[in-house]
This record gives sequence, structure tokens and C-alpha cells, in this order.
Amino acid sequence: MRVVVPGSFDPITNGHVDVVERVARRVDHVVVAVLVNPAKQGTFSVDERMDLIRASLDHLDNVAVDAFEGLLVDWCNANGIGVIAKGLRAVADFEYELQMAQMNARIGDIETMFVPASPSSSYLSSSLVKEVARFGGTVTGTVPAVVEDALLARLAESD
Amino acid sequence: MRVVVPGSFDPITNGHVDVVERVARRVDHVVVAVLVNPAKQGTFSVDERMDLIRASLDHLDNVAVDAFEGLLVDWCNANGIGVIAKGLRAVADFEYELQMAQMNARIGDIETMFVPASPSSSYLSSSLVKEVARFGGTVTGTVPAVVEDALLARLAESD
Amino acid sequence: MRVVVPGSFDPITNGHVDVVERVARRVDHVVVAVLVNPAKQGTFSVDERMDLIRASLDHLDNVAVDAFEGLLVDWCNANGIGVIAKGLRAVADFEYELQMAQMNARIGDIETMFVPASPSSSYLSSSLVKEVARFGGTVTGTVPAVVEDALLARLAESD
Amino acid sequence: MRVVVPGSFDPITNGHVDVVERVARRVDHVVVAVLVNPAKQGTFSVDERMDLIRASLDHLDNVAVDAFEGLLVDWCNANGIGVIAKGLRAVADFEYELQMAQMNARIGDIETMFVPASPSSSYLSSSLVKEVARFGGTVTGTVPAVVEDALLARLAESD
Amino acid sequence: MRVVVPGSFDPITNGHVDVVERVARRVDHVVVAVLVNPAKQGTFSVDERMDLIRASLDHLDNVAVDAFEGLLVDWCNANGIGVIAKGLRAVADFEYELQMAQMNARIGDIETMFVPASPSSSYLSSSLVKEVARFGGTVTGTVPAVVEDALLARLAESD
Amino acid sequence: MRVVVPGSFDPITNGHVDVVERVARRVDHVVVAVLVNPAKQGTFSVDERMDLIRASLDHLDNVAVDAFEGLLVDWCNANGIGVIAKGLRAVADFEYELQMAQMNARIGDIETMFVPASPSSSYLSSSLVKEVARFGGTVTGTVPAVVEDALLARLAESD
Repeated sequence: MRVVVPGSFDPITNGHVDVVERVARRVDHVVVAVLVNPAKQGTFSVDERMDLIRASLDHLDNVAVDAFEGLLVDWCNANGIGVIAKGLRAVADFEYELQMAQMNARIGDIETMFVPASPSSSYLSSSLVKEVARFGGTVTGTVPAVVEDALLARLAESD
Repeated sequence: MRVVVPGSFDPITNGHVDVVERVARRVDHVVVAVLVNPAKQGTFSVDERMDLIRASLDHLDNVAVDAFEGLLVDWCNANGIGVIAKGLRAVADFEYELQMAQMNARIGDIETMFVPASPSSSYLSSSLVKEVARFGGTVTGTVPAVVEDALLARLAESD
Repeated sequence: MRVVVPGSFDPITNGHVDVVERVARRVDHVVVAVLVNPAKQGTFSVDERMDLIRASLDHLDNVAVDAFEGLLVDWCNANGIGVIAKGLRAVADFEYELQMAQMNARIGDIETMFVPASPSSSYLSSSLVKEVARFGGTVTGTVPAVVEDALLARLAESD
Repeated sequence: MRVVVPGSFDPITNGHVDVVERVARRVDHVVVAVLVNPAKQGTFSVDERMDLIRASLDHLDNVAVDAFEGLLVDWCNANGIGVIAKGLRAVADFEYELQMAQMNARIGDIETMFVPASPSSSYLSSSLVKEVARFGGTVTGTVPAVVEDALLARLAESD
Repeated sequence: MRVVVPGSFDPITNGHVDVVERVARRVDHVVVAVLVNPAKQGTFSVDERMDLIRASLDHLDNVAVDAFEGLLVDWCNANGIGVIAKGLRAVADFEYELQMAQMNARIGDIETMFVPASPSSSYLSSSLVKEVARFGGTVTGTVPAVVEDALLARLAESD
Repeated sequence: MRVVVPGSFDPITNGHVDVVERVARRVDHVVVAVLVNPAKQGTFSVDERMDLIRASLDHLDNVAVDAFEGLLVDWCNANGIGVIAKGLRAVADFEYELQMAQMNARIGDIETMFVPASPSSSYLSSSLVKEVARFGGTVTGTVPAVVEDALLARLAESD
């Protein structure tokens, strides 16, 4: 089975790393795919996000990194991937993701499988980590070391 | 990837059939495993449930049927299966299943992946179907035809 | 529009009264229908529950009281009523009631409309009121006075 | 009973159509009322939205279309309508709508009744349909044909 | 025990007043702390909000008012306060607040305790009250009288 | 502030220990109170549960252990305790506990404060731990060592 793990990854957190590690153990091939949203200025560029993902996941042999714009189901069909894997943290995630999954099944014949967040990372999100870092809180242990360095450097630039 | 779809299946509904069909399309092998609970008298015996599952899924080449007693993770490890696939209908399902998934990851190193119910079967459950049938409501289309026949026969016996 | 407000009403609480009052203001006719469940021993008999409902709602001209056994949709069709009205207190209520509503639409072509509980009665349930009364807590204001009297008398008998 | 079904309807989807059809079968008169929000640029103007609603619902004899600005309860009181009917898809909907319903009961003595979405349209929303169409995905079957045509034409203009 | 009740309080509602009153009865000292968010223009300035809080809570002897910018845990540690008290109204509140609480425990060794909203104020929020007032609806009883006066004055200015 | 942490504790888990430890750090005095339910046969007697709680919490100076039958608010008022502290794991917990908290505020003028479960124990419950142990799964790390020993001994007896 080949699966895609889509997301913004601005930047990748240890919660994302955990989900990809667990999926990669079970399936043949994983593509981590960064959603390109031209309308939204991120903290990191798409290329920077992809580099941070690669640096965070280079211990996994069967994981590739890519980016997509437009409909995820179109990217899936173009790349011969039939399954989307998504981490699930909370009830609010579940309802939104369920709506997306049912639409993606309808428009693209793509299946979605949900992977529950590990208890220890259930409260992590990219935006919360960035908010903590912005005000000088420590984020060690919530993101890979390479991401922590990049995040602190980026915040120093913007001061 | 080899996965198990566990449950009581007393009896299998079209919601279960839909989840197994969708999982079977994507993975190498699926085992539908009936939980044996000696403390609970079911509408159908475990053997009857397994027969109804086989009859409902015989159009799928890569699906086998089995039963287990005790911990699902022990059965998984004994059978070389590392992934549990579960259908998810509603928020209440999600919370209970998340708790079970986190415990199964801890005690047995087994991963759980959740498959969202199709919109058209999101309200189906074995117990609701049986309640409708018991009072003479029509259950055509909520369970496979072979299950409908077996259910009506069983209810006629118990009158 | 003629609607039915179904339930166990063992006994009717001020939360139920509030829902019926609000529905009765807006529709032509309301039937409050007690579910007869022979398998479950209640605190009050079905006749007693109907008497307590009548006593609690006799200020409403367009409300009748009845009982039903079996499928609610069969009772609806036999009585020319096409709409079920249900009070909704919490998310857990919502999911179960949504499942029932979708099944009732399928098997009986009956519509369900949900009426949100008033803030002041959102925490009331027959079982919680009985638990409080059983241990000597005051339930004044959570049920109509006639119900409070009946409940205290019933609990005194069972000591 | 006369009811209003309020919303943005930018544009109306088959989920909206289903809710209005089911309500219209049960009550005397339905007004579908478009919320005018001067602060928010929509995909369609309020007049266009009203035209699309009329075109989508012209098979229903007891349905009118209107627009309102400001408080819905003021519009209700000015138009002699005492009940708001709202479709409910998910738990997140429920909590927000419950808060609005309790406020509208307080400030305007207006009742809200919730109508559960049909299983087949529980994942539809105007914004999700527009996102799919924008990237070239097919939306046939998620909106009325007249809306699909208007949406594709509008998106072609904005390229 | 000394606790902080943080929030935007733009402006304070009777729901906030209820939570602070109930917490203040049980603990030694409460600080109501207004979050300063330079990126977001409020209806009232931080100083105005603090004045309205003071006016609304001056019947409570053990309550002080302050403001903070940045991480709440830093403010807590600087002020020798180890517990955050938050009102909880609904499930959606709960999930977001749980995520924040787990992060604040991690980065600042600060505990969070949740206080359930009273039934009668479970539907109140500053933004909903302002929306009602903006369109001429009555907000008497949803905010303290001093806040109602200030809100009506502010809305009159902006016309 | 003096608080009670009520529950069945059949037996105490590491999730309970975590909640009591965190509460005990912040308040003057904590009583862990075992609910006596004569209608329900537990795995451990009330005395055994109290002994296991004492053994699990003897590193905490300001924690006592007690038992109560009937209404918790009566016990609170008899013991001069005005605050109930409850661990919260999930949305389903939240709704039930909110209902209880609002009733306890009404009937006994007792406040409830909720303490979020730590991420690492959010999936633990006494019943799930017992189910795992019953079928031979390892429960090390989910309960205190003294509880694990007692649980394995009890299960050996019942074979």
C-alpha cells in the first residue's frame, strides 16, 4: 500500500513525525505532501518546509517528500496513490476530516485512513508551537531539533 | 499490509460490508475477526455470525473470517497482523476507539487505522437493525439479503 | 402541524415540560407518547406516568397523552402524525438522536425536529432527579410539584 | 406553522435543498432568508443567491425567498414568523447553533427547531463545494444543476 | 490558593462575572488578567476593559485586575501564581482549552482548573453580545449594567 | 482550599494518581473519597480500595482517604469541603461531569473544578486496565506497583 500524508507542515512537529513513523512501519511507501496555498503567507516557504521534513524523517527509508497545489485527489490520481493517511488528535479534527474524507471519496475515489495521535503529542500543533516560541517559551521536545533551530532563527529575523 | 477488522458482527450490516470492501481494495489481506464473549448471549452464535460474514463477503478474494477470545493484540501477534482497521461513525465512537487504540499500541505494539463510515451507512448498527426487525419494521437494504433472511427466521423462532 | 414528543417519562421533569410547552405554542397539536418497554421495570407504571404527564401539562389545551409499544414510526403512521419532536440537551444526545432520526426517516417516512433544551434545564434527566431524591436531596424545582409528591411517596414505599 | 430557514446560501447546495424540501412537507409556509452581510464579499451577490434559491426550489409551492440584514429575530417578528428551522450536520454545528438558538429565544421569543441532515448530504457545505469547483473537481450532484452552471461560469470569470 | 482567570474580556459578560464570583468564594486570591494582543483591534482598549472588570467585580474583596502580553505562564511565574482557572461552556471550548492546558503544564509547570459555566450563562460570549447590541437587540441581563452602558455608548460613537 | 476527589477507584490507576498529585500541590488538603455502591459488586471491596489508595499516595502529606454513600454533596457539607475536583479525559466525560456539576451546585452549593488528564494517562480507566489484566496483558505502568500486585492476585483467585 502506498499512502500520502498531506498537511501544511509550517513547520513539521514531533506529532507529525510520530504519525509518519507509525504509518511508514506498516505500509510500502509514504509521501509526505505539503499543501501549497498561494493565498497564505507561511512562516516557512514550501521549499523550506520540505527541507525540514526531509531532515526530520531521513531515518525512514520508505518516505518521500513532495508538494501539491489544488485538489489532493488530483495529485493522488496523478501519482498512483489511493490512500490518504491523517493524524487525528481531537473530536474537532475528526468532524472536519470526516467531511473532507467523504468529499474526497466522492470526487476522486480516494480512501482516507485516520491514525490516532500518540497520547504524548495529542496537544501539539504547528501554530501552538510557533506561538510559544514567538514569546520566548521553550519548544524543545515539541519539534525535531533541526526545526527548533530553524524556528528560532526565523523568529530572530522578524524581530 | 495485512489488517484485521474486529467486531461483534451480531449480525454483519451493510455498514460493516462497506468498510471491509473499502479496506480490502487497498491492502493485501483482510481478516474479519469475531469477538467471542462467553459472558454475553448473542442473537447469533459465533459460528452463525462467521457464516453470515462469509456469505456477505464472498465477492472479495482477499478476505478471510476468524474468531478470537481474549486480547485482540494477542491474536494479532499470533497471526502476524500489525494493523487493526475500524469503521468510525460518530464522535462517541471516536473517543472510545481512540482509548482502545492507544491501549493496544501500548500493550501489543499494534497500530489502529480508522476508516470513516460512508454517509449512507453512518446511522447503521447491528443493535438498531435488530430492534427495527423485532418490531416488524423493514430492514431491507440495511443488511445483506442473506442476513435479512437469517434475522427474520431467528426472530420468528423466538416468538 | 401535528407532532409527537416521545420518551420514557419515568417521571416527567421540568425539562420535558419546557420542551412540550414550547412546541405546543408553535404547532396545532402535540401528543406526548410514553414508550412501553415490557423488559424494563420502571419507577412508575405506564399508567402512572401518563397521569403525571396529564397533571403536569393540563394548562396546555392542544396536548394529549398516549402510550406506544414497538416502533414509534408505526404509531405515527397509525395516528396520522408525521413529525417527532425531541429535546436536545448535549452532544451525546445529539449523536444518538441523529442516528434514530435517520433510521426513522428511512423506515417510516417520519421527520424528526430537535428542540434545544432551555439553559436552565439542560442538566435535568429523570434518572438524575431520581438518584438525588433517593438519597434525600431536594428535587423541588426540577420536576412539577405533583411529580415531586409522587416520587417522594414512591421512594418512601420502597424503603 | 410558518418557519424561516436562514443562511448565507452562497450558493445553495443539495444539502440545503433537502432540508427545505423536508420542512416544506410538514409546515404551512417556509421562507428561505438570505443573510445580508455587507462586510463580507461573497461569490454571488444577494440577488444572485435569491435567484438560484428560487430556481432550485420552484417545485415547492409553499416556499418563498427573502433576504434580511441585522438580527434574524427582528425579521421574524416583523414577518409574523415564530420558528427558525436549521439543518444540523455535525456536533460542531450543534454547539454553535444551540448557542444562537438560546440567544434568539432570549432576545426575540423565537423558537429554533433543528432538522438533521440526510446521511447523503451530511458532508456538503457551500465553501467545500466552491473549493472543489475552483480546482476543477466535479461538483455534479452536490448542488442543483442551475447552481453548478452558475458556479462554473463565475469561476471562469474570475480566472 | 491564588489563581488567575485570563481572557480577552472585550467586554466582560455576566458569564465571566459568574465564573469569577464562584472561584473567588473558594480560593484566597483571584487575578483577572486581560490578554493584550497588539495585532487585534478590540471594541474596548485594554485600559477600558480593565476598568469595566473592576466596576463589575468591586463587590469581591479578593479579586484584582491586571493585563499581560506574551505567554500567560511567564506572567504566572513572575506573579507567583500556579493555577489558571477557566470557564468551560461547551465541548468545543473543552478541546481547545485542554490543548492549551497541556501545553502550559509542559512549558511553565502551571496547572489549569476548569469551572463549568452556570446553565443560565452557558450561551453567552462577548462576541455574541456585541453582535446583538450592534443590531439594536437588547443585551440587558447578559452583561453588567455598567458594561451595557459602555457598549451602547461605544456603538453610538461608531455609527 | 480543601477539595475532595471522588470516584469508584476499583482500583486506583496512574491516571488517578496523577490527578491527585497535581491537585495536592496546589491546595491545602485533599480527601480521596470512594463511592460506596451497595448495588454493585466490585473487583475490590471498599476497604481494599482505600488501602490501595493509601499505599499509592503515601508520598503526599496533605491527602486523606475516606468513603461515602449517598449524595456526595451531603458528605461535602458534613466534612466542611466546598470543592469537588474531577479529572477530565474526554468529551464524553465532560458532558456527564458537567451535568453532575450543575446538579451538585444546585442541590448542595458545592463547586466542581475539572483537572485535565495528563496526555500520558488520557486513555487509562480502571475497567480497561482490568480487562487487559484479565486476559493476561501487561498492565505495568498503568497502575501503581502495589495495585498491579493486588490485581494479579485477585484475578488468580477468581480463576
